[in-house]
Amino acid sequence: MRTIDWVDGAIELVDQTLLPDRCVMLRVTTVDELIDAIRRLAVRGAPALGVAGAFGVALADGDTAAIARLRAARPTAVNLAWGVDQAAACLPQGRDAVLDRALRVRDEDIAACTAMGERGADLLDGDSLRIMTICNTGGLACVERGTALGVVQTLHERGRLAEVLALETRPLLQGARLTTWELARMGAPHRLVADSAGPYLLARGGVDAVLIGADRIAANGDTANKIGSYALALGAARAGVPFIVVAPETTIDAATPSGDHIEIEDRADHEVVEIRGVRLAPEGTRTANPAFDVTPHDLITAIVTDRRVIRP
Amino acid sequence: MRTIDWVDGAIELVDQTLLPDRCVMLRVTTVDELIDAIRRLAVRGAPALGVAGAFGVALADGDTAAIARLRAARPTAVNLAWGVDQAAACLPQGRDAVLDRALRVRDEDIAACTAMGERGADLLDGDSLRIMTICNTGGLACVERGTALGVVQTLHERGRLAEVLALETRPLLQGARLTTWELARMGAPHRLVADSAGPYLLARGGVDAVLIGADRIAANGDTANKIGSYALALGAARAGVPFIVVAPETTIDAATPSGDHIEIEDRADHEVVEIRGVRLAPEGTRTANPAFDVTPHDLITAIVTDRRVIRP
Repeated sequence: MRTIDWVDGAIELVDQTLLPDRCVMLRVTTVDELIDAIRRLAVRGAPALGVAGAFGVALADGDTAAIARLRAARPTAVNLAWGVDQAAACLPQGRDAVLDRALRVRDEDIAACTAMGERGADLLDGDSLRIMTICNTGGLACVERGTALGVVQTLHERGRLAEVLALETRPLLQGARLTTWELARMGAPHRLVADSAGPYLLARGGVDAVLIGADRIAANGDTANKIGSYALALGAARAGVPFIVVAPETTIDAATPSGDHIEIEDRADHEVVEIRGVRLAPEGTRTANPAFDVTPHDLITAIVTDRRVIRP
Repeated sequence: MRTIDWVDGAIELVDQTLLPDRCVMLRVTTVDELIDAIRRLAVRGAPALGVAGAFGVALADGDTAAIARLRAARPTAVNLAWGVDQAAACLPQGRDAVLDRALRVRDEDIAACTAMGERGADLLDGDSLRIMTICNTGGLACVERGTALGVVQTLHERGRLAEVLALETRPLLQGARLTTWELARMGAPHRLVADSAGPYLLARGGVDAVLIGADRIAANGDTANKIGSYALALGAARAGVPFIVVAPETTIDAATPSGDHIEIEDRADHEVVEIRGVRLAPEGTRTANPAFDVTPHDLITAIVTDRRVIRP
C-alpha cells in the first residue's frame, strides 16, 4: 500500500484522520482540496508532504497563485515547500515535465526510506533492541516505508527488535492512532505510552535508543520535530540513551542557520480541548498549542539520512 | 466547598470523575466504598487521600482487616497510609477518639495549605508571574485550598499572577478537567497545554516558575509526583527556571532513603487506550502506564512545606 500516489490524473492518499478505525483512500483533484487535506492532517509527515507538494503542482496546471498557497499550507516542515519547488522548477518545460519530476520525488522518497532504514539499523548495536519513538514516522508519513519507523521495520525484519515504546503524541495522537496500527500490521511487539512517561521510562532503564523523525533540520543540526521530541531528548541525554534523528537529506535546510530561525506552527485550541469530538476541559478553555518543538543539536547523538550519518 | 468532609456519620466527597461536567457529592458509608472511590480516583490528591484514610478508619468501626486494605489501596502516595495510621493509633481509646483524630487531620490539612500558599508566594519574586503546573494540586486535591495550586491562588489574591500554564496530565487529564475548572472558579488567567509541550514552552521563555505537588518525598529530597513532573524538571533545569515542590510535611517519608525505594503504581491499559469512553488506539493495544515518576533532588530548586523551605 502507498500512503500517497498519482493515479489516473489525480492524487490518491490515505485519509489519516479516519485511522485506525477505517483505512479509506481519498481522491484529490484540485489544489484547494489538497490544501484542505494537508491542513486537517489527512496527509501528514514531512516526507509525504514533500510528495504531496510535488503532486500538487501537477494538479495546479500552471496556476501560480494556487501553487504559492499550497507551498505555505504548513510552515514548519521544509519538505512541503521543497516538493513544491522541485515540481514548479519544471513548469517552463510543460505539464509532462512537471508530472515526471513529481513522480521522481515519489520514487526518490521510496529509495531514501529504504536507505535510511538500512543505515539506521546498521548504526545500532545489539540484537534485542528496545526502541522509543514519538509521532508517526512510518509508511504513513512517507510513501511506502518510514523514516524512524523505517529503521524499526528494518530491525524487525532482521530479527533484532525486542519492543517499541510508542508515545501517543498528544494532541492529535498520531502515535496512538497511526504508529500502533503500523506496528500491529508489521507484527512488531509494542506498547503505547503517554507522552509524559517517555522521559521517566528512559530514566528507569531498558530503552536502547530513541528514534525520531524531523520536519526541518537547521544547518547547525538543531531539529524541529513533533512537540514532545525535545522532552525525550532531555530524558535521553540524562539517561545516556542514544537520541537519533532519521530524516531524508531534503529535510536539512541549509538556509536556516539554527533552530531559533525555525517558524513553529501554533495550532487551534480545539485540538487540545477535545479528543475525537469529546470535550476534555471546561467550555471556553484556551490553550497554548505548539505543534512542534526544537531539539538543540547538542542533545542529538546522530542524524541518519539517506546518504550519511551526521554527528552534530 | 470542601472536597472531602465528615457529615452525619459518613464521608462526603466530590466525585472527581464527573468533573468538569458535573459537581456531584458522593456519600461514602463503608470502607469498601471508600477503597473503590480511591481506586477509581473519585477522590485523589495526596493530602485528600490522607484525610480520606483517617476518615476511613472512623468508618471501619474497628475492622482491622478493612483498615489494612484501605491503607494499601494506592501504593505511591505516603499520605494515605499516614492518615490511616494517625486515626488507627487512637483505636484503643475508642470510636470518639478515632473520629476526633480524623477531624484533626482534616483541620490540619486546611491550616497547612494556607501556610504553604503564603510561604510559596513569599518565596517567589516578581509581581506578574507566569506559573507552569501539572496535575491537580488545588482544593480538589486537599480539603479547601491546594498545595502548588494553593500558592497560585495566594499569588492571584495578592494580584501577582499573570497566567497559569496548566498541563493536561495524561492519561486521566486531571489538569484539563480539574485544574482549569478550579482556575476558572478563581478567575485566574490560564491556558491548557499538552504535557509534551511543557519542556518546550520552558525553553521558549516567559515562564517564571514550575510549581508541582508531591505524592511522596524521600529523605534525600527525591520526589514522586504525577507522571510528567520529571520531564518538566529536566526542562526547567535546562531553561534555568525554578522548579518548586509544594507539599505538606506529612508527604516527607523519612523511612524512604531515596527515590529508588519508592514504589511506582502501574495502572491499567484502558486509561491510555481510551479517553472518556472513546477508543484512541487499535483494539488490543497494550501500554506502559506508570502513574507517577521520580524527580531526583538535584533538579529541585526548593521544597515548600507548611513549616519550612527545604533546598535539597
